[in-house]
Amino acid sequence: MQIICLMLLGSLGLATLAIAEKGLEFPRYDGKDRVLDIDEKNYRKALKKYDMLCLFYHAPAPTAKELQKQFQMTELVLELAAQVLEEKDIGFGMVDSQKDAKVAKKLGLHEEGSIYVFKEDRVIEFDGLLSADTIVEFLLDLLEDPVEIIDNTLELRAFERMEEDIKLIGFFKSQDSEHYLAFQEAAEQFQPFIKFFATFEKSVAKELTLKMNEVDFYEPFMEEPVTIPDKPQSEEELVAFISEHRRPTLRKLRAEDMFETWEDDLNGIHIVAFAEEEDPDGFEFLDILKEVARDNTNNPELSIVWIDPDNFPLLIPYWEKIFKVDLFRPQIGVVNVTDADSVWLDIPDDEDLPSPEELENWIEDVLSGTVNTEDDDNNDDDD
Amino acid sequence: MQIICLMLLGSLGLATLAIAEKGLEFPRYDGKDRVLDIDEKNYRKALKKYDMLCLFYHAPAPTAKELQKQFQMTELVLELAAQVLEEKDIGFGMVDSQKDAKVAKKLGLHEEGSIYVFKEDRVIEFDGLLSADTIVEFLLDLLEDPVEIIDNTLELRAFERMEEDIKLIGFFKSQDSEHYLAFQEAAEQFQPFIKFFATFEKSVAKELTLKMNEVDFYEPFMEEPVTIPDKPQSEEELVAFISEHRRPTLRKLRAEDMFETWEDDLNGIHIVAFAEEEDPDGFEFLDILKEVARDNTNNPELSIVWIDPDNFPLLIPYWEKIFKVDLFRPQIGVVNVTDADSVWLDIPDDEDLPSPEELENWIEDVLSGTVNTEDDDNNDDDD
Repeated sequence: MQIICLMLLGSLGLATLAIAEKGLEFPRYDGKDRVLDIDEKNYRKALKKYDMLCLFYHAPAPTAKELQKQFQMTELVLELAAQVLEEKDIGFGMVDSQKDAKVAKKLGLHEEGSIYVFKEDRVIEFDGLLSADTIVEFLLDLLEDPVEIIDNTLELRAFERMEEDIKLIGFFKSQDSEHYLAFQEAAEQFQPFIKFFATFEKSVAKELTLKMNEVDFYEPFMEEPVTIPDKPQSEEELVAFISEHRRPTLRKLRAEDMFETWEDDLNGIHIVAFAEEEDPDGFEFLDILKEVARDNTNNPELSIVWIDPDNFPLLIPYWEKIFKVDLFRPQIGVVNVTDADSVWLDIPDDEDLPSPEELENWIEDVLSGTVNTEDDDNNDDDD
Repeated sequence: MQIICLMLLGSLGLATLAIAEKGLEFPRYDGKDRVLDIDEKNYRKALKKYDMLCLFYHAPAPTAKELQKQFQMTELVLELAAQVLEEKDIGFGMVDSQKDAKVAKKLGLHEEGSIYVFKEDRVIEFDGLLSADTIVEFLLDLLEDPVEIIDNTLELRAFERMEEDIKLIGFFKSQDSEHYLAFQEAAEQFQPFIKFFATFEKSVAKELTLKMNEVDFYEPFMEEPVTIPDKPQSEEELVAFISEHRRPTLRKLRAEDMFETWEDDLNGIHIVAFAEEEDPDGFEFLDILKEVARDNTNNPELSIVWIDPDNFPLLIPYWEKIFKVDLFRPQIGVVNVTDADSVWLDIPDDEDLPSPEELENWIEDVLSGTVNTEDDDNNDDDD
């Protein structure tokens, strides 16, 4: 079997091999160059040309053969995304952190491996999985309205169900209200990471107990919102409030910002919980986690990263190996992000998951340092 | 920019370029050959060697250069899956439909492009997206217990929330009950496509109004189950009932069996609904669809395919182009699977979605042939 040295074949869908029927043909890369090699001469023109320009900021192309192939694969991922999004007027380019250092500085690019999206006067950083699927979904989200309007009770149910993201909802007089416009401007600054909703309907506002020009802020997995104080708010006040409250007590690892989340560790560690939401035990454990998060929402030292293994099938065997845990079952542990050293709460039986109190005690031990990844190195390995 | 002629880079995650922190390293293909070239000499040994053996049944390798690369990419997807799953004792092989026709016949392989999974005495056909993500998730699902046990009310909530799949739940005396064992045997035959649950708790059974040895069958999106008649059932009776009721009135397109679903058209057409569940309008439209499905659950002529565009970002621009619809908004139409010709219900305004009654009338027109994709060809193109 011929080996091409590809680095990663995540969800490389090869669906076209065997379909006689029409309607599900996945796009193939047509071989046309669309991704621009950005430099001092062409960057202004590129910015002007597209509704959105996506610049991949990267370290110089490696010389080692192995790494070269990997680099070429990244280019191909971008080419495919560029092809798929061509009709949406979205352009792509690459910026070399060494060769194009001046341009990078001018444009404010700083993290190698990130994609910076230029949309009107905003720059949005993408620090998620570099896969065509994830990038395309992210960019399509950016094309939607920054604020979703809730017109009726049924749509309100859709709003209520969405618990994994930070979300805000405001009640305003109309689309023309200056306070709504300020809300909309603030929304643009956090799109697509934070979800903004608004209603102009009294009946909807009443259900939410929202007064006119009032905005509620929901942390992920919290049933009760925080009403942002001192209504009505200006754009700046909204942005300041959200920026301050942005790190949640419980957050789900998402492909679109997984590396950003992982980099945002607390003193070099993450408390990580694995729970498969579709599995009854996993669902039950997640429910316990939510209760713990709700009880501790005011603790700035606590931010549990919840990973649903179903969202990252290729990482499951890797995690099971480096963390030495069985991911068919719920798990919670502390991970040192420098060396991936970890220690896990002993859950002897799926049918007897820890209570919220037991979990809180364990978390307190983690936060106080009583449970930590370093002590574990000296323990007897009795697993 | 160098062009390697790759066919498809779906979710080719290239995550390793820029991480200093540990814990999220996506696997890279290490270059080692693991996928077997199956022939008459080695197939028995391969079947014996692994807990699960996955055989990709394919047409002879093409001679055209373009198609060769595509074929190599498929091999690489399988190699990566094989690498990731090596420690789970899952093996992979390829069977050429021409060269290995005899072996294929012996093993019962018939659909080119499918993967056949041999697990103990069963063969499971995978006719979904040929991506490493999807294949790995599918195979890991096959490693789980075929029946999930519901121990308490909280776990019952997890069961209730799961509405996208066909699911069954039975109440039995204990793990040793012969009727539970028959249920378990039946479950193995449909794993992982259909979800089986059981409870041994009276309190849980009471909530479900299940009597001892009774099994309830839930079509996707139906709130009310059908109680399978004539309890207790043997394995064969359960299998017969499920096989008869397998095609649902409303079914979600899923990566793991998308081509199987698409091939299961009704008289050459599909009624297709696009609705983004995370979007308030999409959620509302989906709710209307569910109501229509519930009203028409006994109509064997009706099986609406619901597609959440969020699940297939790379196909969105393609669908928008071939179907000439805006997928940022809910849509419902008839698609001819032979030529992808289609006709769509006119929904002038998101805020004024069709009522269930209007939708039912339109569906009746589709089923009676009044609305069809052929008439549309003669219409004025006034869109």
